[in-house]
Amino acid sequence: MNVPPAIRWSEGRLTLLDQRRLPAVVDYLDIPDIPSAVDAIGSLAVRGAPAIGIAAAYALAVAARDAGDSAGIAGVLRDGGDALIAARPTAVNLRWAVERLRIRGAAEPDPAALAAEAEAIHREDAAQCRAIGEHGRRLITPNANVLTHCNAGALAVSELGTATAPLYLNHDAGIPFHVYVDETRPLLQGARLTAWELDRAGIDVTLVCDSVPASLMAAGRIDLVIVGTDRVTRNGDVVNKVGTLNLAVLARHFGVPFYVACPASTYDPDTATGNDVTIEQRSDDEVRRGESAAVPAYNPAFDVTPARLVTGIITDRGIAEAPLESALEDLFRES
Amino acid sequence: MNVPPAIRWSEGRLTLLDQRRLPAVVDYLDIPDIPSAVDAIGSLAVRGAPAIGIAAAYALAVAARDAGDSAGIAGVLRDGGDALIAARPTAVNLRWAVERLRIRGAAEPDPAALAAEAEAIHREDAAQCRAIGEHGRRLITPNANVLTHCNAGALAVSELGTATAPLYLNHDAGIPFHVYVDETRPLLQGARLTAWELDRAGIDVTLVCDSVPASLMAAGRIDLVIVGTDRVTRNGDVVNKVGTLNLAVLARHFGVPFYVACPASTYDPDTATGNDVTIEQRSDDEVRRGESAAVPAYNPAFDVTPARLVTGIITDRGIAEAPLESALEDLFRES
Repeated sequence: MNVPPAIRWSEGRLTLLDQRRLPAVVDYLDIPDIPSAVDAIGSLAVRGAPAIGIAAAYALAVAARDAGDSAGIAGVLRDGGDALIAARPTAVNLRWAVERLRIRGAAEPDPAALAAEAEAIHREDAAQCRAIGEHGRRLITPNANVLTHCNAGALAVSELGTATAPLYLNHDAGIPFHVYVDETRPLLQGARLTAWELDRAGIDVTLVCDSVPASLMAAGRIDLVIVGTDRVTRNGDVVNKVGTLNLAVLARHFGVPFYVACPASTYDPDTATGNDVTIEQRSDDEVRRGESAAVPAYNPAFDVTPARLVTGIITDRGIAEAPLESALEDLFRES
Repeated sequence: MNVPPAIRWSEGRLTLLDQRRLPAVVDYLDIPDIPSAVDAIGSLAVRGAPAIGIAAAYALAVAARDAGDSAGIAGVLRDGGDALIAARPTAVNLRWAVERLRIRGAAEPDPAALAAEAEAIHREDAAQCRAIGEHGRRLITPNANVLTHCNAGALAVSELGTATAPLYLNHDAGIPFHVYVDETRPLLQGARLTAWELDRAGIDVTLVCDSVPASLMAAGRIDLVIVGTDRVTRNGDVVNKVGTLNLAVLARHFGVPFYVACPASTYDPDTATGNDVTIEQRSDDEVRRGESAAVPAYNPAFDVTPARLVTGIITDRGIAEAPLESALEDLFRES
């Protein structure tokens, strides 16, 4: 695929691709402790719901190694875990990964065990992406025009990405299709990351401003929308990068199928609806940087797409379709 | 209002506020001939459908003065007029203003007459903006939250602007309200121009990325959308800055009234529907500049909002409501 991995773990050393500098600079940040991981997550050096969960798990394993005894490790898992969770409040994967490390650490207060748990999360994530791709690829018919938003690609997850996994698998199989990528203001994850990784993989991609999909859909030039998600609540509401609700409303209006890709770690049955999720508010300056007038800005990082606007959720265990709440429950029920 | 005029005409000299450099630099370009006017219009130093019509009219008057005899003046009106019209194909005002100068020049091949005609266009435009404001201001109820897109403000027209005229009049009358301004990628006319001019006028304004209005509407935080337009076709279709169709679909979905402000010069009864209008395609580089990956971009400057998504068109002669085609015909019938 020719896309550098977002997360590298080698001989106990964690390094993260600095996605703030992409595509101009491909460089890795060394993450030797919790504060550097919190900073990398908060500043979006590493981003994407699954990727920040994996990065947090490795960071806890690294910090546990320097923590000394069991009490020290417990402190890292407690306080370091809290600091990591607080770095970004919306994605459920971050909390989920920290909790997994805490459970393992309570049973085995041993840095090697924690490293093994982080590696397992990473490995499972890659397998889930592949499964999402296998389930979703039939949706991408030959010569389809697909629209995606933000980055739910390899850079957000591991290997195949979530929303991009069906694309990568079909591309590898020689099936032709075309992808429109929203630039995704204010941080341009679509323009900087998704367009870059799909193009590097040899996929036919066209960049558009976030306001353009309406006219593309009106002209019949979009066959399918696929996006990722930071959290799917019990009722099937989708919390994802701001602009996702916009696309879902357009897709409904113009009769375009609207799909969401979601690994197991992103499903949050403990939260009833999207209205119960804290939406991260980010700095005005992300919107105003550059040429803008110096006025106040409103900069929510995410929005909530109600389940009724979602055609289906492509998971690693199959595609959930309406009614989403029971379909998700069936797919994710512990077997 | 404390907003510098987009167009200055003084003692036969035409200067244009260079809107490409706003808000950082407030500076005027000297327009001594047709090529400099074509460049200013094509590069968006002057933009906004009414403003480019006024600028073109003055540019023809300036060039006519240097053209010598009647034959020279006729040549300016023919060839210079064609060059000006070609600078931006979508707005109808540009062609309309050139045609007015040609009719006057055919009757009176005299630079002074052409200057008087351009001044009349400019004066009428200011009066039309005020009339739009008077008709539209009842739509802005106290404490309303208004959303606008791109710039249909003083900078796009003259004095009060079109979409902004009801806002400026109500603000002057001490009626409180709040305006959300879309940043309007790729050229950020909302962030650079509308936010700037409303803020300078003392209006309470918040900047948002183009993908944010969906969640604002979902939360009940938008009471009304008002945008300008570059052309209203006979059936009431609205051609305006790309992203307008997006807002119209959202407004319909969330039950928010969607209004368009339109002076007489923007109504084009000779074009049946929006599908008959040439949509200007602009350079990929406007989208990709800065941090984007080096992939192809699709960059239409405008989109078409079908009449059925428009609540009303606020004109200088009253507000046209559905059915728009007959309502517009009634308002604009020669009296």
